[in-house]
Amino acid sequence: MDSPCQKMDLEAVNSMNYEQFLDIFGNIIEKCPVITAAVWSRRPFLSFCEVEDRVSEFIESLPTSGKEGILRCHPDLAGREQASGMLTKESQEEQNQAGLTSLTSKERERMMLLNTEYKQKFGFPFVICAKMSNKDQIIKELTSRVQNHPSVELLKGIEEVKKICHLRMQDILCKGSPLPTKL
Amino acid sequence: MDSPCQKMDLEAVNSMNYEQFLDIFGNIIEKCPVITAAVWSRRPFLSFCEVEDRVSEFIESLPTSGKEGILRCHPDLAGREQASGMLTKESQEEQNQAGLTSLTSKERERMMLLNTEYKQKFGFPFVICAKMSNKDQIIKELTSRVQNHPSVELLKGIEEVKKICHLRMQDILCKGSPLPTKL
Repeated sequence: MDSPCQKMDLEAVNSMNYEQFLDIFGNIIEKCPVITAAVWSRRPFLSFCEVEDRVSEFIESLPTSGKEGILRCHPDLAGREQASGMLTKESQEEQNQAGLTSLTSKERERMMLLNTEYKQKFGFPFVICAKMSNKDQIIKELTSRVQNHPSVELLKGIEEVKKICHLRMQDILCKGSPLPTKL
Repeated sequence: MDSPCQKMDLEAVNSMNYEQFLDIFGNIIEKCPVITAAVWSRRPFLSFCEVEDRVSEFIESLPTSGKEGILRCHPDLAGREQASGMLTKESQEEQNQAGLTSLTSKERERMMLLNTEYKQKFGFPFVICAKMSNKDQIIKELTSRVQNHPSVELLKGIEEVKKICHLRMQDILCKGSPLPTKL
């Protein structure tokens, strides 16, 4: 079994058309439904782990600009999207869970300065798997990672994208979204 | 000059950070902001034509599954997204302009059957540059193209994606979106 609380049926997922597959898995990589859509071409999957592996494979097949592009699709933590209620529901949940929606104005300002410094240096946002963290740890990581070389941060950011993908998959499998009737 | 009514300043665009660039050009390829985000890495651009060339280059660098993925990010014409008001503003405008938002119920049903047939055969939606067409022409094309070999339709669909991108760029250039002050 791919997951401790797997409520989704692999056979049903393998029978999904691309629209159903995208409805369910379309945002496992933030704002990159094209990746999920590409991975549907590789069905049938032997396991849900294989779905993640194919996503990872696709990401790795991209040129550097494509990987940077994936990072640039991510919102800042406690940034403008959060402030204006424009986060995807997955990002909203992740930022909530890490305590990033209840910052003091001093913390918010600090976050903004650090995010700005990071983006100006690297040309992509600071990406971290927020669900596996909390605001103090995040600020520590941000302060530390902003010192890194750009090539290191590209690798690190993509690593975090994959962790986020894994947790989003887990959530979907545990919720066991409404399954289509056999096509 | 790239466009007859170019109101956007190339220098200002070349000075944009990736967030500003995405705010303006993020949906030139339907629901694929990752492509725009990747292309930002290639600045400064010598012309707006170069932006489109880089987009095309990026698309062509993708594996077949990636190109199929791009097509799968597109809505059906006169389909469920239109019916539920869930089209992007660009798609809404394009479908309006082609007369696809004012179909009779008979035409709508026919469209749905043809779209379903197409998707079942090819595993991606029928994509056409609707702004350069009208509902009768679209139905003709759909009826004709559904006969094609999958490899032909993949090429054709991507060709249409690039035409749509071109017209979306033209719209943006002609509107001359609010430019950022020099950074």
